[in-house]
Amino acid sequence: MQFRTDLAIETREMNGTGRLKGVVEEHSEAYGMNITRIHITNEEGAEQLGKAIGTYITVEIPPLTDYAENQRMEALAEEIKKMLPEEGLVLIAGLGNYQVTPDALGPKTASLTFATRHIQGEIARSTGLSDLRPVAVLAPGVLGQTGMETGEILASLCKELKPAAVIVVDAMASRKTERVGTTIQICDTGISPGSGVGNARPQLNRETLGVPVIAMGVPTVVDAKTLAADLAIQSGAQESAAEKIQNSAEPHGTAMIVTPREIDLLIERAAKLLSLAINTALHPNFTPEDFALLVG
Amino acid sequence: MQFRTDLAIETREMNGTGRLKGVVEEHSEAYGMNITRIHITNEEGAEQLGKAIGTYITVEIPPLTDYAENQRMEALAEEIKKMLPEEGLVLIAGLGNYQVTPDALGPKTASLTFATRHIQGEIARSTGLSDLRPVAVLAPGVLGQTGMETGEILASLCKELKPAAVIVVDAMASRKTERVGTTIQICDTGISPGSGVGNARPQLNRETLGVPVIAMGVPTVVDAKTLAADLAIQSGAQESAAEKIQNSAEPHGTAMIVTPREIDLLIERAAKLLSLAINTALHPNFTPEDFALLVG
Amino acid sequence: MQFRTDLAIETREMNGTGRLKGVVEEHSEAYGMNITRIHITNEEGAEQLGKAIGTYITVEIPPLTDYAENQRMEALAEEIKKMLPEEGLVLIAGLGNYQVTPDALGPKTASLTFATRHIQGEIARSTGLSDLRPVAVLAPGVLGQTGMETGEILASLCKELKPAAVIVVDAMASRKTERVGTTIQICDTGISPGSGVGNARPQLNRETLGVPVIAMGVPTVVDAKTLAADLAIQSGAQESAAEKIQNSAEPHGTAMIVTPREIDLLIERAAKLLSLAINTALHPNFTPEDFALLVG
Amino acid sequence: MQFRTDLAIETREMNGTGRLKGVVEEHSEAYGMNITRIHITNEEGAEQLGKAIGTYITVEIPPLTDYAENQRMEALAEEIKKMLPEEGLVLIAGLGNYQVTPDALGPKTASLTFATRHIQGEIARSTGLSDLRPVAVLAPGVLGQTGMETGEILASLCKELKPAAVIVVDAMASRKTERVGTTIQICDTGISPGSGVGNARPQLNRETLGVPVIAMGVPTVVDAKTLAADLAIQSGAQESAAEKIQNSAEPHGTAMIVTPREIDLLIERAAKLLSLAINTALHPNFTPEDFALLVG
Repeated sequence: MQFRTDLAIETREMNGTGRLKGVVEEHSEAYGMNITRIHITNEEGAEQLGKAIGTYITVEIPPLTDYAENQRMEALAEEIKKMLPEEGLVLIAGLGNYQVTPDALGPKTASLTFATRHIQGEIARSTGLSDLRPVAVLAPGVLGQTGMETGEILASLCKELKPAAVIVVDAMASRKTERVGTTIQICDTGISPGSGVGNARPQLNRETLGVPVIAMGVPTVVDAKTLAADLAIQSGAQESAAEKIQNSAEPHGTAMIVTPREIDLLIERAAKLLSLAINTALHPNFTPEDFALLVG
Repeated sequence: MQFRTDLAIETREMNGTGRLKGVVEEHSEAYGMNITRIHITNEEGAEQLGKAIGTYITVEIPPLTDYAENQRMEALAEEIKKMLPEEGLVLIAGLGNYQVTPDALGPKTASLTFATRHIQGEIARSTGLSDLRPVAVLAPGVLGQTGMETGEILASLCKELKPAAVIVVDAMASRKTERVGTTIQICDTGISPGSGVGNARPQLNRETLGVPVIAMGVPTVVDAKTLAADLAIQSGAQESAAEKIQNSAEPHGTAMIVTPREIDLLIERAAKLLSLAINTALHPNFTPEDFALLVG
Repeated sequence: MQFRTDLAIETREMNGTGRLKGVVEEHSEAYGMNITRIHITNEEGAEQLGKAIGTYITVEIPPLTDYAENQRMEALAEEIKKMLPEEGLVLIAGLGNYQVTPDALGPKTASLTFATRHIQGEIARSTGLSDLRPVAVLAPGVLGQTGMETGEILASLCKELKPAAVIVVDAMASRKTERVGTTIQICDTGISPGSGVGNARPQLNRETLGVPVIAMGVPTVVDAKTLAADLAIQSGAQESAAEKIQNSAEPHGTAMIVTPREIDLLIERAAKLLSLAINTALHPNFTPEDFALLVG
Repeated sequence: MQFRTDLAIETREMNGTGRLKGVVEEHSEAYGMNITRIHITNEEGAEQLGKAIGTYITVEIPPLTDYAENQRMEALAEEIKKMLPEEGLVLIAGLGNYQVTPDALGPKTASLTFATRHIQGEIARSTGLSDLRPVAVLAPGVLGQTGMETGEILASLCKELKPAAVIVVDAMASRKTERVGTTIQICDTGISPGSGVGNARPQLNRETLGVPVIAMGVPTVVDAKTLAADLAIQSGAQESAAEKIQNSAEPHGTAMIVTPREIDLLIERAAKLLSLAINTALHPNFTPEDFALLVG
C-alpha cells in the first residue's frame, strides 16, 4: 500500500504520535495559521521519515481567500528570509508544466517573481531601482517537453551564474484532501531522493546543484490511488483487498488525481501568494503594490 | 448514498442486469467503438432510470488519441444527424465555464463550431459559401458569472431566432473513472429534471425551450464523493459507515473531483472531436481540413 | 480620406477649435486626470460630430500603471453612477472576441464584473450578501463566432430581463496613438449609428434595446490606415497621394492595427480598472479587496 | 532614418537592385512559394547588408491558411534538413515571451516540438519509439522575466549537452506590412551582431554557443516607427521632417507595432507550421498526424 505525499508533516503523522529519534517538532501560531517545524537531525530520523536531514516548515492556512493575506504573506516571507543567505544572487526555478493546470504552480509563480539580475548601472539609477538584490528566474519546463532533466538544466545554470542559493517552487501532492490548497511547505533540503513515494520529482539539492536549495510548494492534488487506499482502510478492508481497490481508481494506467473543481483559481491564488512572499523576502523595501507594477 | 452520474448507461447499470419495463436497449459496434442505445419508452422506464422519455446513445471509444479518428468522428456525426430535423436553423450552446478547466468542454466546443447564420446573400456568393445550413452558436456562461440561468438566456434567444432545434454541449460527470474522456453521450431529451443526482445542471428541453433539444457531452470528472462511496462499498463497509467515508472526501465543503492529471489535453481533444462531429453533421459537404480553415 | 475613431473628443478635434452649434464642452481635472464632457445637445451638433445626441465623457489618464489607481477608479465609478438610474437591474455586456487579444477588453471586463441577480433569499442571507443591487453579465461574442448580431442577442435578453439600464464595454479605436491605453470614454448614448467611420460596431442604444444604454471603453488600437493617412498629411502629401499611401498600409486586404507591443498587459490592466469602476458604481459598500474575493 | 527589419531579403532590397560584391542570390519556386537564397560570401557583402557571412533563405508563402500546407511544410523541412548536421543531438530554443502575443512565436513553436533526448532504452523499446534522433527543447524566456541573457542560458546548456547544432526560433520584424505572416526566413548564421537596426535581439551564433546555429522565424510585426518613416518618404517628406514624423508614431516612448488584428491566429498557425517543419526535418519517418499524437 502506497500513500503518496510530498509533505513532511504527513510522513510524520504516518509514523504515529510517539516521539521519533532524530526528529524534533515545534509548533507555533501566527495570524490564524498553524506553523509546524520538523527538524530531522540525523540519519535515523531521515530514514524513518524517508526525507533528508534538514528543516521542514509547514504553514497551515485557512482557505487561501482570506482578507488578512498581507500579514500572512509577510509571515511567510519571514520564514523564507531566514532560510536564505543574507546576500548574493538567488536563482528561482518554477518547476512543472504550465500547460497542465494542476502542475502549473511553479511556472505561474515564476512569471510573477521579480527578476533583477539585469537591472544594474545606468538603468538601475535612471529607474530608481538601485541596490536591488540580484535575482534570476527560470521556468525550465518538464522532461517530457524538453528532453532534459530539470536537474541538468539547473546544474548547468548554477555553474555559470554561481548563485548564493536556489529556490525551487513546485506543485505538490498531499495524502489528505483537506490539505489541498491550504498548506504551504518550505524546507532547506531542496527536493531530495526518496521524498514522497512513487514520486517522479527531480532531485534538486546542495549535492546536485552545489549551493543551498530551498524548496517551496502547495499541494494541489491528492493521487487518486492514495485516496482510494485511505478510503479502503477506513472502510475496514483487508490489506490485500485494499491494494486491489487502490488500483481500481486508475483504469487504463491513466494517472488520476483528486483536486478541487476550482483548480484554476487555486493555482492562481497560490502562485500570487508564493511569488509575493518570495519577492518580499528578497526585496523587503517594496510593497505588494510595487510588485504589482514591477512584475505586471 | 448518492452516486452522481450524467450517463444513462450508468443509471441503467445501477438498476441491475435484468430487464426493465419501459426500457429497451440495443448494442452495436463501429470502428472499434461500442455503441449502446437506451430507449426509455414510457413513464415507468423514466422513473426507474431517473431520466426523461427518449433515446440515449452512448459511444464508448478507446482513449481519445486514436489515429482512426476521422471514421469515428463521421460515425458520431451520423448519430447527431439522425436526431436533427432535416433542415432549418440549429442553435448550438456550449455550456459551462471556460475559466474552469474541467468545465470548459462546452465553451471550447462552441469556439470550434462553424456559425453560418450570418453568411448570406452577397457575402455567401463571393466567398463560395452559399447554401449553408444556418447555424448560430453561443457560450452563455454559468449562473455564477452571469447572474442568469442558462435556460433563461437560451429561452429568450429561442423566442427570437425560432431555431428548428438546439444542441447543447456540456462536460459531464460519470460514476466510474474509466469512462472519463472515453465515453460520449448523445440524447434527444435535452438536459432534463432529475438527471443525475445532486446535480445542478440546468433544465434545457423541449418544454423549456419550445423546440427539440439534443444534448451531447463527455464525462470529464468523477465526483470525489461518488468515488469514495464506491470504494467504501467495494471495501465492504456498512452503509452508515460508507456515508461517513463519502463525506470525508470533501473537506471544508469544497467540491472535489477525480480527473486525469492531463485534464487540459482531454478537454482540448474532446472539444475538437465533438465540434468536428457537429460541423460534419450540419455541413456534410465539408471536410475536417475545411473546418480547420473556416473556424480557425 | 477616412480617419477611424470611436472617441467623441477626437471627432470634436477634427472639427477645428472654434465653437460648434449644438455642442457644449466642459473641462475639469481630478487626481491628475483630464476630464472632458462633450454634450451634443441637438441634431445640428449630432450631424457635425457624426454622433448621437447625448453626453460623452473622456477621461485622460497617464499610462494605466499608476500607483494612485484607487482614487482614479473611484472618480470613474462616480461618473458611471451618475449615468445610471438609481435602482433596478443592470445588464453588463462585454463586447468583442476574447480570442483576439486587442478585442478582448469587453469579455475580460465582463469576467471580472460581479453578477448578483441570482444572489437572493436564503443564499443572500447565509453569505451576508443581502441587499445587493441586481446585476447580470454577459459576453455575447462576435458575429463571426456566433452567427448572431450582438444587438439581436441583447435585445432578446432585454425583453426577458427588463433591466433598468444596460452597460456595454468594448475595445475602441482612436485616431492618435498616444490615446491608446490612456483614455477612457463613457457615454449615455450607447453605441450609435454613424459613430466612427468604416466602423462595424453594432448599434446598441435605447432605440434598439428599449432601455438606457451606457457605453464604456478604452482605445486599444489605431487602424493602420488611419495612422498612414495622418502621417501622409503631416508629410505634406496631396490628398490623392495620401489616399494611395493609406491603402498601402493594408496589403492583401488584411486589417492591420497599430498597438503597443505589450497589448496583453494593456488589456489586462484596462479590464481590471473598468470592472472595478463598474463594480464600485453598482455596489458602493464594497472595496476593491472585496471584489477580488467575490469575483476571483 | 532607421528601418528595422530582421529579414535579409529586405536589407538586400534596401541596397538597390544592382549587383553587390560578396552577395550571391538565387531564386526558385516550389508549390506556389517563392524561395530566395542570399549567400553572403565575404566581409564586403556582410558589411553592405549588415549581416554575418552565411546563407539566408526566404520563403514567401501566400497567407498561411493554405490547403496545400503539407507539401509546403515538407519543402520547408527539406531546407532545414540541409542546414543540419546529419546526426547528433539538436537543441531547439523558442525565444521570446509567451505572455506577449506578438512575441510568443518561439515559445509556442517550442511547445509543439517533439523532444526525444530522454526516450531511450526500455522506454524507447516499449513505446516503439526507438532510433529517434535526440532532440532537446527549451523556451528560455526573455531578459526582463529571467534576469538572464538568452545567450547565457543557451551557452551554459550547450557546454553541458554538447549538441551537434542549435535551432533558434523567434518572432521577427519586417519593414513591409505585406511580409507579416507570409514570409519565413531560415539562416545558418544564427542571430548575429548587427542584424536589423535598433535591434535588441540576443547574439546567438557559433561564436557564442560553440556549435552551428540555425535561426528561423516569421515576421509578426512592423515597428510603427519603421512604417511611419516609410510612409513619410512615400509622401515626399524631407529627411529632417521624416524623422520627426517617425518619432510621432511612438508617443510616451511606448514601443508601438503594426500587426494584423488577428495576431493570435497568425501566431498559432505560424507556430504549427514551423514546429511541423522542424519535427519533420528531424524525424522524417513520422507524419503530421503522428506528431499531433506525440506532442499533443
